[in-house]
Amino acid sequence: MQQYFVNGKADKLVTITDKDTIKHMFNVMRLTEDDEVVLVFDDGIKRLARVTNVQEHTFEIVDELSDNVELPVQVVIASGFPKGDKLEFLAQKTTELGAHALWAFPADWSVVKWDSKKLLKKADKLTKIAQGAAEQSKRNIIPQVKFFEKKSDFLTQLAVFNKIFVAYEESAKIGESAALARELAQLSADQQILFIFGPEGGLSPAEIAAFEKAGAVKVGLGPRIMRTETAPLFALSSISYVLELAK
Amino acid sequence: MQQYFVNGKADKLVTITDKDTIKHMFNVMRLTEDDEVVLVFDDGIKRLARVTNVQEHTFEIVDELSDNVELPVQVVIASGFPKGDKLEFLAQKTTELGAHALWAFPADWSVVKWDSKKLLKKADKLTKIAQGAAEQSKRNIIPQVKFFEKKSDFLTQLAVFNKIFVAYEESAKIGESAALARELAQLSADQQILFIFGPEGGLSPAEIAAFEKAGAVKVGLGPRIMRTETAPLFALSSISYVLELAK
Repeated sequence: MQQYFVNGKADKLVTITDKDTIKHMFNVMRLTEDDEVVLVFDDGIKRLARVTNVQEHTFEIVDELSDNVELPVQVVIASGFPKGDKLEFLAQKTTELGAHALWAFPADWSVVKWDSKKLLKKADKLTKIAQGAAEQSKRNIIPQVKFFEKKSDFLTQLAVFNKIFVAYEESAKIGESAALARELAQLSADQQILFIFGPEGGLSPAEIAAFEKAGAVKVGLGPRIMRTETAPLFALSSISYVLELAK
Repeated sequence: MQQYFVNGKADKLVTITDKDTIKHMFNVMRLTEDDEVVLVFDDGIKRLARVTNVQEHTFEIVDELSDNVELPVQVVIASGFPKGDKLEFLAQKTTELGAHALWAFPADWSVVKWDSKKLLKKADKLTKIAQGAAEQSKRNIIPQVKFFEKKSDFLTQLAVFNKIFVAYEESAKIGESAALARELAQLSADQQILFIFGPEGGLSPAEIAAFEKAGAVKVGLGPRIMRTETAPLFALSSISYVLELAK
């Protein structure tokens, strides 16, 4: 069944006000009176809702649904600004794979330079992509998209996490391949995890040092070299596998 | 160091004849005499090679390298023909994630209809993408790309595999989430694994039945709904995690 995210709280009678949502509901899907959809409000609970008035875009809540497809831990993916439209790709794919948020920061070796105007525009675009993917994947939340204009602002956020991982290619070369598995085995429910990835050129030694000072653990993601936009998908899949499939 | 795949056996003196490879070596990378690259021949062994003559595109083998980044099992990803350029995407990403081959077949619910001419053209394009990705990921092999014009030809191939998995969305709904983990724990080195994925609309009940008759096991890939081009990345990541990181 079609699912939509709606800002605010779930009242008994809901009026949809977001233009894109209205367009999709009544022009694309051509909902008519008594049709049912799933609405997800700020509390992340899915609710079955029935169209009561097409012209006024109103729904009546019929039932509360129990299904929750969120990962048992909150995983924030942070990527050094990559080139091109890789963040657009990541917004879609990390949402499908269960990320709690997608953050991006200007890394030392990021080639692109984005000013605050460009960042706002890009964040807006990515949020829309994440929303669309979250609706398709039947997520309970829309992952937050957040751009840091300065790396220092990103660094001040690190303290809030229970566990920080840095994807580190060299780990594989020195034969250390078990760090991720060792750490994942120790996670407990509801922890907040940050997983940091470099841009195409990787993270600088100064960045690695700064992350480690904040408690980050360097982890290898296997013997094959992955592109900067592929590594986060491997990480999220591994976390899902360990916590959702191999329990 | 730059890596190239070269058809044939490794002789002491190697002459490169493939036009695209020559172009990349001498026009893009501007290799000159005594520059070193890694060449990978049909045996999958990486060898350090030194340019001996730029005009004649010749190399001398300097050393045999021991690194092998292939998954301990051979995983063939088979996808029902999906829409658009999703197979191009899969050729790149499944190569990065260690697939042994990418196969595609006309599934009952595939929307696209590709004739044999189109299939040949598409297979050629995908092979080039897989080769480029294999060079970037430093693979020891280029994954095979294979298109089946008829599903019956695909079905006759199933007998060669040690284990066949079918990604099955409904598994999650009926609360069966542990099948994949249970099966992966039983794999042993060098086994040949086939992992089958439907097109956008999924696999038909008749297809599921045919695969199960051939010994396939239905496995869920977690609670979130993934797009048809994302599920194979989750599967490969999980296999890599279990066999390469969590050993």
